[in-house]
Amino acid sequence: MANDTNTVRIGLLGCGNVGGALIPLIEQQSDVIEARTGIRLEVTRVAVRNVARDRGVTLADGVLTRDAMAVVTDPDIDLVIEVIGGIEPARELITAALRAGKPVVTGNKELLANVGHELFAIADEAGVDLLFEAAVAGGIPLIRPLRESLRGEPVTRVMGILNGTTNFILTKMTEEGAEYATALAEAQELGYAERDPTADVEGYDAGAKAAIIASIAYGSRVVAGDVYHEGISAITAADIGVASRLGYVVKLLGIVEQDPETGAVAVRVHPAMVPKHHPLASVRESFNAVFVEGDAVGQLMFYGRGAGGAPTASAVLGDVIDAAVNLSKGTHATLGSFGRATIMGIDETSAEYLISLDVSDEPGVLHAVTGAFADNGVSIRAAEQEGIGPDARLVFITHTAREADVQATVRSLRDLDAVLKVGGFIRVIGS
Amino acid sequence: MANDTNTVRIGLLGCGNVGGALIPLIEQQSDVIEARTGIRLEVTRVAVRNVARDRGVTLADGVLTRDAMAVVTDPDIDLVIEVIGGIEPARELITAALRAGKPVVTGNKELLANVGHELFAIADEAGVDLLFEAAVAGGIPLIRPLRESLRGEPVTRVMGILNGTTNFILTKMTEEGAEYATALAEAQELGYAERDPTADVEGYDAGAKAAIIASIAYGSRVVAGDVYHEGISAITAADIGVASRLGYVVKLLGIVEQDPETGAVAVRVHPAMVPKHHPLASVRESFNAVFVEGDAVGQLMFYGRGAGGAPTASAVLGDVIDAAVNLSKGTHATLGSFGRATIMGIDETSAEYLISLDVSDEPGVLHAVTGAFADNGVSIRAAEQEGIGPDARLVFITHTAREADVQATVRSLRDLDAVLKVGGFIRVIGS
Ligand SMILES: NC(=O)c1ccc[n+]([C@@H]2O[C@H](COP(=O)([O-])OP(=O)(O)OC[C@H]3O[C@@H](n4cnc5c(N)ncnc54)[C@H](OP(=O)(O)O)[C@@H]3O)[C@@H](O)[C@H]2O)c1
Ligand SMILES: NC(=O)c1ccc[n+]([C@@H]2O[C@H](COP(=O)([O-])OP(=O)(O)OC[C@H]3O[C@@H](n4cnc5c(N)ncnc54)[C@H](OP(=O)(O)O)[C@@H]3O)[C@@H](O)[C@H]2O)c1
Repeated sequence: MANDTNTVRIGLLGCGNVGGALIPLIEQQSDVIEARTGIRLEVTRVAVRNVARDRGVTLADGVLTRDAMAVVTDPDIDLVIEVIGGIEPARELITAALRAGKPVVTGNKELLANVGHELFAIADEAGVDLLFEAAVAGGIPLIRPLRESLRGEPVTRVMGILNGTTNFILTKMTEEGAEYATALAEAQELGYAERDPTADVEGYDAGAKAAIIASIAYGSRVVAGDVYHEGISAITAADIGVASRLGYVVKLLGIVEQDPETGAVAVRVHPAMVPKHHPLASVRESFNAVFVEGDAVGQLMFYGRGAGGAPTASAVLGDVIDAAVNLSKGTHATLGSFGRATIMGIDETSAEYLISLDVSDEPGVLHAVTGAFADNGVSIRAAEQEGIGPDARLVFITHTAREADVQATVRSLRDLDAVLKVGGFIRVIGS
Repeated sequence: MANDTNTVRIGLLGCGNVGGALIPLIEQQSDVIEARTGIRLEVTRVAVRNVARDRGVTLADGVLTRDAMAVVTDPDIDLVIEVIGGIEPARELITAALRAGKPVVTGNKELLANVGHELFAIADEAGVDLLFEAAVAGGIPLIRPLRESLRGEPVTRVMGILNGTTNFILTKMTEEGAEYATALAEAQELGYAERDPTADVEGYDAGAKAAIIASIAYGSRVVAGDVYHEGISAITAADIGVASRLGYVVKLLGIVEQDPETGAVAVRVHPAMVPKHHPLASVRESFNAVFVEGDAVGQLMFYGRGAGGAPTASAVLGDVIDAAVNLSKGTHATLGSFGRATIMGIDETSAEYLISLDVSDEPGVLHAVTGAFADNGVSIRAAEQEGIGPDARLVFITHTAREADVQATVRSLRDLDAVLKVGGFIRVIGS
């Protein structure tokens, strides 16, 4: 803080959903913040693409600019908030800010899931904060608890509903029996889903967040490209009906696990059947939640709004206060060094599986089918038949089995004449 | 750290449920902690009452002592953990540690809810950490998110299931239709409830935690004596049945609110009817959860184990690492100054209310009864009659009303000849 030890002058890069909610929040809360911390936050400069656009926020003359780099390098700016999104120019801007000794707060999951390690190293070298609570699960305090409260906890698994759009769609399908396309259309109408919903429904957005969670939970570098993903576009109302009758809810989960022996980390996003009594099962609509399992702490869950301008701005503000307090004390948070994680492929992971088969109604079908399971070393926990005659459907739930073995089982099943179709294939998590 | 910049030498005061779980946890995790933070944690001395007792933990000769003050003042001790419990000697020991410049981690809710402000001031003066994540909701990271992540958030209300014993009892009553006495006996058998269950079932334990939450959430001093409490011993299976039919679950909640106009803080613990879809409703058995509402962040919930040696030790360890890292950097966390809160009495709070009445079956009863509501300015949202003839029961749910007005209504109802008994009286929260 060059001039005034009590004021921290903020350069805000981006003033869209998040930035636009942050400005009035800082204004409203600055007296409380000053009373509690002795620090006055001042949004001194704001960079956007289009300075002419009306943003519904009042800014003094000359605060708005199109030149984000000039904001970062301005000697009158003490702290930088990046809420532009995307890789470039965010990466270049953050790098410049950190190198100039300015703490940075960002909510940019894409950037962190791809080149986070590079930025963490720059921040460590420069001895300043790079905080990013908003990048995962929006308003939910998750990164700080993982980084600090659980730093000594033997975390065995983290599972999250990390994408509000897909949880909204699955909730509609579950509670109203809607088909995927109908529920997606409703989500688009309400503004929960983009016109091109791929990033959400195919699990890329959740995957980026899962990579960040894995990096923080296990202190080793996991990137977006390491994440296995399956989306929800193939889930049918029928799948959800079967799950429901068996006592489960279908959720899109990001799952992060570490093999206690080898230290290898598995990171995947896929639909999963969660028992109705599991805390994740009652997370409805566009809410997010992250469920943490640890040897000592047992089970934890963090629940809240994973997106939206105001909740995300709340998370950004928490980080800003933290960074401002650290700056005034001449200290900063450290993540420690991040070696590259050994990634465990999906084939090596284990779960229970639901597999449903359309079969022809002929003698010996059940024998042939169960043989395919047995031959691949997959044992069956529960089986039921739905319908009779030509519409007969067999539904199996396995005991915990290796993915590779179950995939081999599915291949064997497909080869059987009596199996007309392998329908639902959903992993069962949290029994 | 007097001797070795990489080792932090811990003096552990108390080695019961929490201390006894902490020692093996530190042992198991010390390599990971060292890799992530560069700090080696060493439990150097341990004070207990009875040095002869077998604790199932291996300690080098001479580590155990009966003299807790000698541990605190030992120049070889860098950091003190207090898990003895109670006010004295914990207060004296913590004060001495802080005054000697040693950071302290404690899980002592009783102490903090009564004289926390005094200890916070001593810590601030000494410039060292006093951390207490374990004091509220055991293993759930709550204090750190409230202190840090939500420091800038306009928190409007915090509601918590803060006592696992009562939540276990209420879960049995709800799911198995058990009466209170039966459920309590089962909780005692399983070791969830003490022989004398008063502190849990009458809401004192939850009240102490609510006072600490209020102090942190609103940055002002609230003590255990400020908390209004009602316990669960008067709740009947019938009350729970009525609640269930109307779509609610009964939970014992600690509720902390601030009047946005006056800044006054209301802190209370009482049974409440929570809508079945509310996230707090699905918190079962002995789990705890804290639900936070804020203008920007919307709704958050933190869920997990509120007690038990291992989960509590996990929270203590998170604080220990934090304090050790701060110590090595020469910094510390600050709570800021805590003015005395203006307390708003229960009479000034508002809620919806369920009131059920046993009435005599005579003409004009309903008219007289509804008159008692109207005269006191309490409006009725829903009414239903159960049974007929001499067993008739009227159940009302009010719109949001002031407690004082509802209490006046209850007095008026009691004065009516037609009202044989005012039965269930439960506040409805979270609609
Ligand atoms: N929205 C959420 O719910 C949410 C939740 C969690 C995390 N995040 C993350 O927060 C970040 C921002 O999200 P958002 O929803 O606020 O995005 P947004 O509404 O698209 O806003 C982006 C802002 O950046 C500005 N901008 C774009 N390119 C720029 C450049 N080269 N120089 C200066 N300004 C530039 C835009 O200017 P114009 O206004 O002139 O176009 C706009 O103000 C993203 O990383 C996102 O992933 C968002
Ligand atoms: N247990 C939980 O689930 C839980 C959860 C959250 C917070 N906490 C808090 O954590 C603290 C400890 O709880 P706990 O369940 O571990 O209690 P505990 O099992 O009763 O253990 C207390 C320990 O303190 C020792 N002690 C008592 N007086 C002492 C003295 N004057 N000098 C030295 N040592 C003394 C006892 O020694 P002996 O072993 O020789 O008797 C015992 O080891 C309490 O403040 C409690 O509220 C506990």
